[in-house]
Amino acid sequence: MRFLVAVGTSETALIDGISAAGANPDVMSHTPSADVEILAYGRPVFAPFVPVSPSGCPTPSLVTRAVVELLGLDIEVVDAGLVEPTAAPTISVEASQGRDLREPTAVPGVASIVDRAHTLARAIEDEELLIAESIPGGTTTALGTLTALGESVSVSSSLPDNPVALKESVVSEGLTASGIEAGDFAGQPVEAIEAMGDPMLATVYGLLAGAEETGKTVTLAGGTQLLAAGALARHGGVEAPLTLATTSFVDGDESTDLAAATETLDIDLSVTDPGFDREDHVAFERYRLGEAKEGVGMGGALKLAAESDVPMTAVRDRVVELYDDLVEADGPG
Amino acid sequence: MRFLVAVGTSETALIDGISAAGANPDVMSHTPSADVEILAYGRPVFAPFVPVSPSGCPTPSLVTRAVVELLGLDIEVVDAGLVEPTAAPTISVEASQGRDLREPTAVPGVASIVDRAHTLARAIEDEELLIAESIPGGTTTALGTLTALGESVSVSSSLPDNPVALKESVVSEGLTASGIEAGDFAGQPVEAIEAMGDPMLATVYGLLAGAEETGKTVTLAGGTQLLAAGALARHGGVEAPLTLATTSFVDGDESTDLAAATETLDIDLSVTDPGFDREDHVAFERYRLGEAKEGVGMGGALKLAAESDVPMTAVRDRVVELYDDLVEADGPG
Repeated sequence: MRFLVAVGTSETALIDGISAAGANPDVMSHTPSADVEILAYGRPVFAPFVPVSPSGCPTPSLVTRAVVELLGLDIEVVDAGLVEPTAAPTISVEASQGRDLREPTAVPGVASIVDRAHTLARAIEDEELLIAESIPGGTTTALGTLTALGESVSVSSSLPDNPVALKESVVSEGLTASGIEAGDFAGQPVEAIEAMGDPMLATVYGLLAGAEETGKTVTLAGGTQLLAAGALARHGGVEAPLTLATTSFVDGDESTDLAAATETLDIDLSVTDPGFDREDHVAFERYRLGEAKEGVGMGGALKLAAESDVPMTAVRDRVVELYDDLVEADGPG
Repeated sequence: MRFLVAVGTSETALIDGISAAGANPDVMSHTPSADVEILAYGRPVFAPFVPVSPSGCPTPSLVTRAVVELLGLDIEVVDAGLVEPTAAPTISVEASQGRDLREPTAVPGVASIVDRAHTLARAIEDEELLIAESIPGGTTTALGTLTALGESVSVSSSLPDNPVALKESVVSEGLTASGIEAGDFAGQPVEAIEAMGDPMLATVYGLLAGAEETGKTVTLAGGTQLLAAGALARHGGVEAPLTLATTSFVDGDESTDLAAATETLDIDLSVTDPGFDREDHVAFERYRLGEAKEGVGMGGALKLAAESDVPMTAVRDRVVELYDDLVEADGPG
């Protein structure tokens, strides 16, 4: 089994109100680099901070890291457009930062990114892949891509109040800038990403296409962003079984109907509840209030934990320790 | 134990006659990227070829890969100035390609590369590091660096006939261009690398400095290039024990006196003979004639194999299989 995390950035995240991470350009740029350092080393190395939302919600990478430690997992990172250095080992598919999706081209050079990711997936010898992501603003580019494909799926949010109207208006502007209407790129995943997506989606679409060719089993470890990647695969002719492994927080999000969306796309759905409501530590408080919800492979990692003999209480205990070491130790502010 | 390979490029390799890999700019650029793909995947992925010298000598990465497979090792790659894509996961220290050492500055931004590598070594939790390299033209930049430090150590070569006079003349031009004389940068490793070195040396020097601070045990897995990195560490005040683990081919090279050089620098020497003279397969033929000799961690990997219960015949058998799969399958030319 190989656990891949595709991480990148896009200027879509900088649109006011779209993303917690995008509230500050520095935070947006460093967040995915910091997330994968936490996965690889248990703490930021080159990144200047632990990603914590303005309201105090820690990045889901703490949860994935807890599982990585407890299960002894190896995670491999694919650089899908990072802009800040990371000390985590990364595989480059030569992607650069995505543009604001309201520009005519959201992702330049999609075909080349897809091609490299495709080659990479073919080269990996493991027969089972878990694929995760971290890209600020990613649910908006996911909505844009789904819209271009003509899939009327609503997306989740890392914010407790999903700014649905804002996302729809951004996507609408993006369609106009690209000179297309909803559904114009049905069956054309590369064009859909180019017009409305982000470099993470280009990377994961390429991985899915390459994985199918070599008969690999794939689990998409995430929420509606990876659902969009699954939709791209279906529109690109990938017929292999796909599973979306997500958290109970995304599944419980009333702004999206995950069961219906996965059924439409013929994707199996697996939901894991980490039991955060059984703890009253501050690390879990914002999750219980609907923030963050998923990301950096959290849902997939929790699924692996649930299938192992490591109890979920051990995962929560380790999250608390990581939080206390990393966030509390940073002090106020 | 963590096995790190620092890989990069420099324009010094393009000087006519310096390096087998530098005979062709394309070969020079792709060789380190291909080497680490062979370590990670057992074959080139994005790189267009398996590095084989004009006379037919396969890259030592085949030998290291054989040991990686037999011992189940994990190797981590540090990007110390690659210019071509690689599918191997790499940790970036934000190094770029080195210049021709005959220019006033051979490596721009040394202090920043050293600083990142230093931080990286501190972040690695393992207590034991093996550090290897792949950089075309690297023995010439090693000679330049040793000369700037005032260490009169001669260097080995990947060519059967070491072009010693050419290297000395290149180094002499480099000293003039940098406005220095031999020994002017004794005790000043950063300045020595900047004037006469390459980005691999900057990276490994930083790793050694960071490893000492966190009390790690370090083995330099290579020949005279890593000896130069050890010299930089000594000149930078690193007093920790260091071991150079190299092959019998470097140790037997009459153009360098490794025993004397390691003794001067207070570095332990460990030599492993892979027994290539007991086989008559074409994969070993050029090694027996003094070509390649070392690189991409070959000496360190062989040391690990010798200390394990895997017999050296199994290593040789696996090298033959890899050669037949990768080189023979490529066909003539």
